[in-house]
Amino acid sequence: MLNSVQLSNYIITHKERFLQELIDFLRIPSVSTDPQYREDVREAAEWLASHMKHIGIENVSIHPTRGHPIVIGEKIVDPALPTVLVYGHYDVQPPDPYDLWESPPFQPVIREEKIYARGAADDKGQLFIHLKAFEWMNSVRYFPCNIKFIFEGEEEIGSPHLPPFLTHHAERLSCDAVLISDTSLLSMEHPSVTIGLRGLSYFEVEFQGPTHDLHSGVYGGAVPNPANALARFIAGLHADNGRITIERLYDAVLPPEPEEFEVIEFMRRFDDRLKQETGVRELTGEKGYSAYEQTALRPSLDVNGMWSGYQGEGSKTIIPASAHAKFSIRLVPDQRTDEVNQLVKKHLEKHTPPGIKATLKILHGGDPYLLSVHSPEYRAAAAAIEDVFGKKPLPLRTGGSIPIVTHLRKTLDAQAVLLGFGLDSDAIHSPNEHFGIKNFLTGIETIPHFYRHYARFCCT
Amino acid sequence: MLNSVQLSNYIITHKERFLQELIDFLRIPSVSTDPQYREDVREAAEWLASHMKHIGIENVSIHPTRGHPIVIGEKIVDPALPTVLVYGHYDVQPPDPYDLWESPPFQPVIREEKIYARGAADDKGQLFIHLKAFEWMNSVRYFPCNIKFIFEGEEEIGSPHLPPFLTHHAERLSCDAVLISDTSLLSMEHPSVTIGLRGLSYFEVEFQGPTHDLHSGVYGGAVPNPANALARFIAGLHADNGRITIERLYDAVLPPEPEEFEVIEFMRRFDDRLKQETGVRELTGEKGYSAYEQTALRPSLDVNGMWSGYQGEGSKTIIPASAHAKFSIRLVPDQRTDEVNQLVKKHLEKHTPPGIKATLKILHGGDPYLLSVHSPEYRAAAAAIEDVFGKKPLPLRTGGSIPIVTHLRKTLDAQAVLLGFGLDSDAIHSPNEHFGIKNFLTGIETIPHFYRHYARFCCT
Repeated sequence: MLNSVQLSNYIITHKERFLQELIDFLRIPSVSTDPQYREDVREAAEWLASHMKHIGIENVSIHPTRGHPIVIGEKIVDPALPTVLVYGHYDVQPPDPYDLWESPPFQPVIREEKIYARGAADDKGQLFIHLKAFEWMNSVRYFPCNIKFIFEGEEEIGSPHLPPFLTHHAERLSCDAVLISDTSLLSMEHPSVTIGLRGLSYFEVEFQGPTHDLHSGVYGGAVPNPANALARFIAGLHADNGRITIERLYDAVLPPEPEEFEVIEFMRRFDDRLKQETGVRELTGEKGYSAYEQTALRPSLDVNGMWSGYQGEGSKTIIPASAHAKFSIRLVPDQRTDEVNQLVKKHLEKHTPPGIKATLKILHGGDPYLLSVHSPEYRAAAAAIEDVFGKKPLPLRTGGSIPIVTHLRKTLDAQAVLLGFGLDSDAIHSPNEHFGIKNFLTGIETIPHFYRHYARFCCT
Repeated sequence: MLNSVQLSNYIITHKERFLQELIDFLRIPSVSTDPQYREDVREAAEWLASHMKHIGIENVSIHPTRGHPIVIGEKIVDPALPTVLVYGHYDVQPPDPYDLWESPPFQPVIREEKIYARGAADDKGQLFIHLKAFEWMNSVRYFPCNIKFIFEGEEEIGSPHLPPFLTHHAERLSCDAVLISDTSLLSMEHPSVTIGLRGLSYFEVEFQGPTHDLHSGVYGGAVPNPANALARFIAGLHADNGRITIERLYDAVLPPEPEEFEVIEFMRRFDDRLKQETGVRELTGEKGYSAYEQTALRPSLDVNGMWSGYQGEGSKTIIPASAHAKFSIRLVPDQRTDEVNQLVKKHLEKHTPPGIKATLKILHGGDPYLLSVHSPEYRAAAAAIEDVFGKKPLPLRTGGSIPIVTHLRKTLDAQAVLLGFGLDSDAIHSPNEHFGIKNFLTGIETIPHFYRHYARFCCT
């Protein structure tokens, strides 16, 4: 039996030590993208492994990769119990622009009940929630599930070495569910569980017109201009109502789950927040859909980069020889990146303007993810939230992609549940990243409840 | 009396020196648009002034401006004779893309009877024709007209400082006609005199969406993407039939002169050449008009440059904060650049997409030009061509703009005749610009004949 009072008391009693330990962890500048921090990333892996052993996690080991190490560990109490794999990452984003930090990014400080440091929320603080929850569970020998841990040091650079590691250690990491705390709650008043992530198909297209830049006076009017043609092609990717025009693109798009309609209504109140966050005067997008639907439940197509001809000061009167664009489509269930890539290819073949030679490169992609609200993983997360927050969470989708989630699902054949405790205002990837102490402690309190409920739901 | 044999012999005798002098001139990288070449532009002005003095031009002086210097000189033989002002420019287009040059742009080389260098045809080589023609005329004291010279260093950036200079020195530069060699012959077999130039209105537009680059997953679909919006705006500038959609833009467009219909028919045979020159598979443009009409008698609109977001290797998943384009409209009689600028401004105001802040900069412009085939200027040029080429020239319009032609006409109250010796295949404004040696020498031979005929026709 989970003794809630005992859990709460343990957290209250050890709060200062927990924070001090997290501060020690945050002090290590484990920036994965920058080679000058390489030794620091290794130090963070060692600190983490050492702390895991210290709190009673077994078979802890550090696995070097061609990049940064992967740290794993486990607590197997009974092969008959369900097994949960906790995924997290101990690497962080670069701290720059450095001079916009009010306190140095790797000298964590507590101000107004928040810890300020790079990685405080993304993801060291959220990863640490799982270690402190384990510490309590181990102290009272409460283990409704077997628990495995995998912490990587390359999430912020696209996890290049995790998929082969997963494949190679699939048995060692085998589990019934994957538990990840690397997302946000809508707010402390409106807790949420992330059930959906969009996928991605990312393209680069080149339009070649004349073989060389031409004088726009001598030739302008008769010769196909690849920049004008590219603009026309890009414009043609959306209809006036904001829908993407690529044929059959929406064929695989599923309607919202019945349980989501309430969420969609609820989320309308955040449209103003979206405007404030982005600084745009007006929200646009696909007609007939709310901003939440547009960004989380519907595919979207954005130009990510575009270039052609003369970009310098003043004027140069040319018809450019070529024009380029990077554009990407965010995918939703049940779209598949491979299928969408083919649709885009066909669309381009059909709509290549006269006189233009078009070349398409597929840069990268990933399938979307959706966790059913009827799954044991979601139900366990929702019940745990209800236990601690006193209200049911909203099953939310987010518009971004976490490619590793689909890798984990495919390789380990287990559903992943995204039970994050951050807030969108935590400034992750920005100066003055922070993590609310209340978020941290509430997270620690919630996790043991998740295991309790998961053990109940998993085998029913 | 003009002694044709003596003229030919002089050119043959001094050919190698002429070419060497021109190569010395071309070696100076007088790129006017880029501040890093500022000193080189000044050096070119000094080289030019020094050479003018050397060949006997009088009252040569270099006039500094807030930009690049203007060089003038003259040979006044008799106030009773007509006066011709020769205009040229010693500045050149930027050489980029640098790596497409087969030999460096500022290390002139002769290959297959052509000089390859930036500025070889546009306009240093053609300007130099006038100096060498003068050199011969001075050597034999043959001056049927007074001759004045004005050479500027800012033609490729729109001649910002020439109009005030003209106004200020209107008396010093007063003349009966302006003679300019900055255009092309149709071919050596089909010589032509340029009677028409298109005008220009050149714009830079910025579309601002969000205040900063956004995560295209989290926000994609709801937030206006300035790159997509710009593509849509640009695409909307043309109708499906190739006509420009800007309201009232065609109101001032005149039909061809009666003498031009034959030329229009004749020019149809060059459509294939146009494809070969440009390397495009198909000519496009306004439906119902030949390529010659499209490029010379009809307005056209081209994107000259375009940029937004991420242009590097691989993928970056952002909604860019802003998107930019440079675009320009070529104008034909009787369109006026000031009026067109207003029409474009209004069009943008009317068609700014929702959520986008648009900013329009008018970079430069110039009115179109048309010289009557009945004018003494045209008749003198045609007669000179007939003397040297053995056949009448075609009165051609060209699609390019030489804004200064209209300034010269307005300020000095004199018609300008465009007697150019380049070819459309010279790759001006492109890598591997070149100028045929035969064109260069034939030009030198033709110019003295022009003076002879002009003296006859001017006062009848």
